Amino acid sequence: MANPVVTQEPRSQSPLPSAFDRFRPDISAAMRERLDSDSVGAYPMLRYNMGWVDTEGNEAAARGGKALRPTLCLLACEAAGGNPEVAMPAAVSLEFIHNFSLVHDDIQDRDTTRWGRPTLWSVWGEPKALVAGNVLRAVADMALWELLELGADYTDAVAVTSLLTEGYLQMIEGQYLDVAFEGQHDITLPQYLDMIARKTGALIRCSMHIGAVIGSTDHEAAYAFREFGRSLGYVFQIRDDVLGTWGDEETFGKPVGSDIRRKKNALPIVHAMSQAKGSSSERLRSVYEHDNLDDADVDVVLEIMEEVGSKSYADALAVEHCERAIAAISHVEMSPESRAQIEGIADFLLVREH
Amino acid sequence: MANPVVTQEPRSQSPLPSAFDRFRPDISAAMRERLDSDSVGAYPMLRYNMGWVDTEGNEAAARGGKALRPTLCLLACEAAGGNPEVAMPAAVSLEFIHNFSLVHDDIQDRDTTRWGRPTLWSVWGEPKALVAGNVLRAVADMALWELLELGADYTDAVAVTSLLTEGYLQMIEGQYLDVAFEGQHDITLPQYLDMIARKTGALIRCSMHIGAVIGSTDHEAAYAFREFGRSLGYVFQIRDDVLGTWGDEETFGKPVGSDIRRKKNALPIVHAMSQAKGSSSERLRSVYEHDNLDDADVDVVLEIMEEVGSKSYADALAVEHCERAIAAISHVEMSPESRAQIEGIADFLLVREH
Repeated sequence: MANPVVTQEPRSQSPLPSAFDRFRPDISAAMRERLDSDSVGAYPMLRYNMGWVDTEGNEAAARGGKALRPTLCLLACEAAGGNPEVAMPAAVSLEFIHNFSLVHDDIQDRDTTRWGRPTLWSVWGEPKALVAGNVLRAVADMALWELLELGADYTDAVAVTSLLTEGYLQMIEGQYLDVAFEGQHDITLPQYLDMIARKTGALIRCSMHIGAVIGSTDHEAAYAFREFGRSLGYVFQIRDDVLGTWGDEETFGKPVGSDIRRKKNALPIVHAMSQAKGSSSERLRSVYEHDNLDDADVDVVLEIMEEVGSKSYADALAVEHCERAIAAISHVEMSPESRAQIEGIADFLLVREH
Repeated sequence: MANPVVTQEPRSQSPLPSAFDRFRPDISAAMRERLDSDSVGAYPMLRYNMGWVDTEGNEAAARGGKALRPTLCLLACEAAGGNPEVAMPAAVSLEFIHNFSLVHDDIQDRDTTRWGRPTLWSVWGEPKALVAGNVLRAVADMALWELLELGADYTDAVAVTSLLTEGYLQMIEGQYLDVAFEGQHDITLPQYLDMIARKTGALIRCSMHIGAVIGSTDHEAAYAFREFGRSLGYVFQIRDDVLGTWGDEETFGKPVGSDIRRKKNALPIVHAMSQAKGSSSERLRSVYEHDNLDDADVDVVLEIMEEVGSKSYADALAVEHCERAIAAISHVEMSPESRAQIEGIADFLLVREH
């Protein structure tokens, strides 16, 4: 496993694991097929959102997401002994749900760019973007029904739909907590961990679990994959939070301290707020009283985070969850290739720079 | 059937059919059970939205909706020969989905009141209301899973979930069209009818269809109920549009001409725009150029609607769809009581004043 404590790791040490490349063409083709044409004209917005076309509907090759969730779903299916093609409808559904959540997130947060492009609401206005997000949510549900066509039995289809519904509810509950916590700077670490377990963790956990359920009838194995996914969710979000504070602008796309500037309830600040004592605590709280944080404010916060060891804490917590993830599937029988690929994703999420 | 041409019908001539009263306690109890408690604190907002509590969470008895969709679902189940109790999870799910759509609708339209109370977003802010709407959508999905516990078989559960997903997608597509049409005043009647068939019709059609599928294995009967629902959707929305223009403030809760004032693409104006000729057409279009329509503008529009017969057209169209609805189930075997109740709802929707 890569050493997470080395913080100035050059980008070349965390290349995207090969599983992403292996599944990407099929995932992309399946997604494009689902968003090919519709009767009301909402899909062009959704295709733009996926990075396939520009605002005018012309082909574009913008950088989109990593397709982490569908890749995990297909990998889990394969590792559990199944045919990943059968899991494709679920994989696609997971990615659509994730993207739906981003569309609504951007509206809530008034974010005008994502992956370097204007967000849906900032191009088409909020009402259209809100509804387009809901369309995408429905497309995700529709996509799932293809499971039956691809040979999944009714029991599996019902189980998968039920898991996805449950995961979706938890994700939304996490978003609700995130919004409810806004403006509060006394969130405890357990509150933060509960929030990210739902907001980010639920769908990642769900991706592994669903893949395993489709790939195998072994309930114990499915449970192990689920637990892997649960821990992986923490790794993903904790690393995201570390990058949101200390990420390099060139690789991560956001300036150092961007989460601080937005007063986002991310792990480093939740940690610093809970650990800073005396005058440091007072300085920290007084900075967060400001409506807008300037460069000097951000420096104060970074300095206090350094003082109380927020980065080391976050890194260590991510390592701990990465180890838990890998341990969760250690007893599950699978090919060495599958194990290497799954562990490779965990290691990658621990050290990724973007 | 009541005579729909009488427009000044006193309110007492259109009482709520007894089916609403008969099912209301059970629907309400089932819905309250689903929104009893949650782990993130989002449910109090949802309970407020249903009219059960005030903004502080204290019990209240506000006027809510009619619970049309769940009532239709249970009635269809019963009429098809089933036990309406088994259909309750689907009925509840339909009502939650309907309410989810209202929460997001109010955000899109910036409506500050509904049923005489402040809307969710106007009390809790938009981000929280947006997410709370999504929570409600997830609660609707979760509610549906109880079907299996109540003894529905897997095939039925899958069929119902599939129907609901399809209906939901169409509803959202209709909302998309509604938003996309905003600011356009050259919508054709077919475009308008397509829009309301999705936006309003899909879920009403779905309610009848799902009830029948749960109540009976007779596919032909289920199809007939579906067609009844399809026509009923038109009746409902056309009447809504008539009330939105000519509804009495005291009974309907909105002043005469409220849809005109909002420049809403409702049937009367779509009809008037397409039928007005010469100077009437010019006057109509020039009024709609105004950013805000004043009382004199509204009078001009009402006058032109009178001239081209928009009210008679709308009333006649509603009658036509009401007759189609009743004809669609005429050959389906059911008890005289069930038929009377179902027809009673169609007749009621045709003449309701609120």
